[in-house]
Amino acid sequence: MKAKYEALLEQLHKINDVEKAMAVLQWDQETNMPAQSAGRRVAQLTTLSEIAHRMFTSTQMGDLLAAAQEEQAQAHYDSTQASMLRVTQREYEDQRLFSAEFVSRKSAVTGTAGAAWAQMRADNNFAGFQKHLEAAVAIAQETAEIRGYETEPYDALLSQYERGMTSAQLRLIFTELKNESVPLLQAIAERSERVNDAMLKQEFPVAAQEAMCRYGAESIGYDFKRGHLGEVHHPFSTSFGRDDVRITTRYAPEYAMSSLFGTMHEAGHAMYEQGIAEDLDRSPLGQGASLGIHESQSRLFENQVGRSLGYWQAHFTKLQSLFPKQLAGVSVADFYNAINKVQPSLIRVEADELTYNLHIILRFELELALINGALKLADLPAAWNEKMQSLLGVAPATDKLGVLQDVHWSQAAFGYFPTYTLGNLYSAQFMESAKQQDPKIEEELATGNNTFLLAWLRENIHQHGNKYDAAEICMRATGKPLSSAPFLKYVHEKFGAIYGL
Amino acid sequence: MKAKYEALLEQLHKINDVEKAMAVLQWDQETNMPAQSAGRRVAQLTTLSEIAHRMFTSTQMGDLLAAAQEEQAQAHYDSTQASMLRVTQREYEDQRLFSAEFVSRKSAVTGTAGAAWAQMRADNNFAGFQKHLEAAVAIAQETAEIRGYETEPYDALLSQYERGMTSAQLRLIFTELKNESVPLLQAIAERSERVNDAMLKQEFPVAAQEAMCRYGAESIGYDFKRGHLGEVHHPFSTSFGRDDVRITTRYAPEYAMSSLFGTMHEAGHAMYEQGIAEDLDRSPLGQGASLGIHESQSRLFENQVGRSLGYWQAHFTKLQSLFPKQLAGVSVADFYNAINKVQPSLIRVEADELTYNLHIILRFELELALINGALKLADLPAAWNEKMQSLLGVAPATDKLGVLQDVHWSQAAFGYFPTYTLGNLYSAQFMESAKQQDPKIEEELATGNNTFLLAWLRENIHQHGNKYDAAEICMRATGKPLSSAPFLKYVHEKFGAIYGL
Repeated sequence: MKAKYEALLEQLHKINDVEKAMAVLQWDQETNMPAQSAGRRVAQLTTLSEIAHRMFTSTQMGDLLAAAQEEQAQAHYDSTQASMLRVTQREYEDQRLFSAEFVSRKSAVTGTAGAAWAQMRADNNFAGFQKHLEAAVAIAQETAEIRGYETEPYDALLSQYERGMTSAQLRLIFTELKNESVPLLQAIAERSERVNDAMLKQEFPVAAQEAMCRYGAESIGYDFKRGHLGEVHHPFSTSFGRDDVRITTRYAPEYAMSSLFGTMHEAGHAMYEQGIAEDLDRSPLGQGASLGIHESQSRLFENQVGRSLGYWQAHFTKLQSLFPKQLAGVSVADFYNAINKVQPSLIRVEADELTYNLHIILRFELELALINGALKLADLPAAWNEKMQSLLGVAPATDKLGVLQDVHWSQAAFGYFPTYTLGNLYSAQFMESAKQQDPKIEEELATGNNTFLLAWLRENIHQHGNKYDAAEICMRATGKPLSSAPFLKYVHEKFGAIYGL
Repeated sequence: MKAKYEALLEQLHKINDVEKAMAVLQWDQETNMPAQSAGRRVAQLTTLSEIAHRMFTSTQMGDLLAAAQEEQAQAHYDSTQASMLRVTQREYEDQRLFSAEFVSRKSAVTGTAGAAWAQMRADNNFAGFQKHLEAAVAIAQETAEIRGYETEPYDALLSQYERGMTSAQLRLIFTELKNESVPLLQAIAERSERVNDAMLKQEFPVAAQEAMCRYGAESIGYDFKRGHLGEVHHPFSTSFGRDDVRITTRYAPEYAMSSLFGTMHEAGHAMYEQGIAEDLDRSPLGQGASLGIHESQSRLFENQVGRSLGYWQAHFTKLQSLFPKQLAGVSVADFYNAINKVQPSLIRVEADELTYNLHIILRFELELALINGALKLADLPAAWNEKMQSLLGVAPATDKLGVLQDVHWSQAAFGYFPTYTLGNLYSAQFMESAKQQDPKIEEELATGNNTFLLAWLRENIHQHGNKYDAAEICMRATGKPLSSAPFLKYVHEKFGAIYGL
């Protein structure tokens, strides 16, 4: 007779196959599919999603889970078996909370709100969008009630993306971060003329950008033998299993560096997935631990590696050879400063390493108030503009450049934005610990290489996949809970040096 | 209450979604997937295939079918409803014939035989391959017994690919074809020096080939807004629904014309799928009627359009502009003759329009004898070489260039090869009828255009999808059952003119 655990695993493998098939269809949709086939692709994805959901929430799955848990009752917490059962049980309970009626109603609300958002943003019409946003807030509040929470509804939303994280904890960490970032930003603003990034604002031929992005991803350790670089409108990375983890980027002649750093960002996500232990593949453990931990890997490679002086001292001549006309005569130091220029701006996705978190804190504070009912929708644009002014010292002339800029809220994805800043904080904390634990890492980074760093990440983070929660990963890897201190130390040192503070 | 037919259709739509998801995964496997992920992709495809099979052969499907049939008992034979029920019932009975044990055993046999074939072909070792081929023949014979037949086992295999076609009918048609083709070929061989194709045997830059293939597909009516041209090792076309039908080709500097005619061939298949009526999409009727009818569309566009004098009189200057060095000073007439050169050769996939069918007849006669038990495996290579000599006047020096050249038999795909020649015969019969029914078609083809021809094909063949069997399509479109006469008339006229017979 087949062991109970094996029987469960076989079923989990099959569900994972269906989910990965969906990932392939989604990837194809962005990269190759003719637009006219969009409706048909939605139908295909809906069917696969229903199948996966039905398989996962079936009573058969409940029985398999119960039997396997009984059989593996003595398994050590750290074992693959215990983790598989723990994570699967949690996910099983989560997915069974939502009725088909609710799932379909939520999908209708966000579908309508998403389409309205695209239109109303184009028209700069917040008033027109308001009722859709109200519906999205309401469905998120309903989601929170269904999921349940101890202290406040926002916790239930947050934990969809970052299990175990609470609003209270976020308030604490984000307040520290804000209190130090804002004065630092002001000090930099007074010296903004010290960094000139004019050389980045030229036309960079797309063909050479492709070579540059491939080189950039390869240089930091992305494995092309188990990957693929494609071109899309909105870059992302995706995994069809640890041996096929793809990245995408976007080329525009006037934004050469954003295609490169975007590629490094996606490569960071992808290297995480490529590094998951083989025996976790094709199961609920064969993915990252949380969005925050995932983002820490992308940010670490994009910023702490990709925007470091060591990296560019080693690789700048390569870049110059690809863009001789644009970069001849530019010194490494000037280039390094330029790619790290701090510049308060209106748009989150264009923000630098320091101001990015202020965009997130603004969204966190506003969405918390929306979900708790402390802020009325009609007052949202004014609240947005006021916070922009106090945090970043700039305010948008139109809602299109302000409160209407992101798609996320129309998708009812409240609780999602904080994971971006959590990623930044985790990345600094991981980097600090890695350097402390293995002094060779810092030495090697100074020469533009990161094999020791990657080995540390593989050992302490990547291999574990989804075995542990974000907080557990953080504690195991760094010996401490998440804190804003390492990030603040990092930005003080980095930007202090660049701006002579 | 939902109508019974609608309930059935909803389930058929979902099954079709799963099947099309498999098609996307297979396309991706050939075009983008890193080789290292092959095992994982097999697992994903196996799971989806099991799910689709289970959904389609469930007793729930049987109940839905029975209820819908009762409800639609008065539907006209030609209606979508009646066709849907007829085709689904047939497919349902077919799929339920095979036990899971048999399917998995057959898959194991062909998996092993396929791998052995690749190795033994490389080693030119028929003796080593023989036992695997024996197993493949045995599993095909078992398939025939399970499917059942009236007269001879081969009928049961043939009807997997060309429902309703019989060995007796094929023998008749193929004998007529052979009796006229062989003397025609001999007459041509005596005048082979009249056609010089040296200008095709140069190096053609791949970048210009890409432009050429795109131009070629577009010029005959392939709709890129509902399609995509990709690059692969073994070209194919595939449909994910009528609004996403993709073609692929292969570029090699020394075979420019094979990438172009290969693209036109795949575009012919794809235009068939793009032309299926919208209300048949996402169902068992949303595909071609048979492999033979499918091949008729690819062959028609590759040969009767793509290798016609009218086409090249209109488009040769475009080709010259893409390959000025290679084609400057070449006349249209010389180019037309060159791309139609008849040349008996050892390899099927390199054969011209006339000799191709002789390669197929050889395979048909041999596999018929294998399945009926009239030919022993040990005698197969000698029988192959003897038939090559009598049909084509050439014989291979090694089995690698002879009996070991095709993968199909290792896959137990007996009954498949004839559909290639059926396609050639159907294409000539369709073209003859089209020209008779609409005189504008011939006029327009002489100017290198085919919108009237495509409209005729859409009206008489494409729109019907899988509503009718091949024989029904043929009778409806041409008023006659399939015959070799139109094809023989076509080749006599075409090659008679080229070779001055």
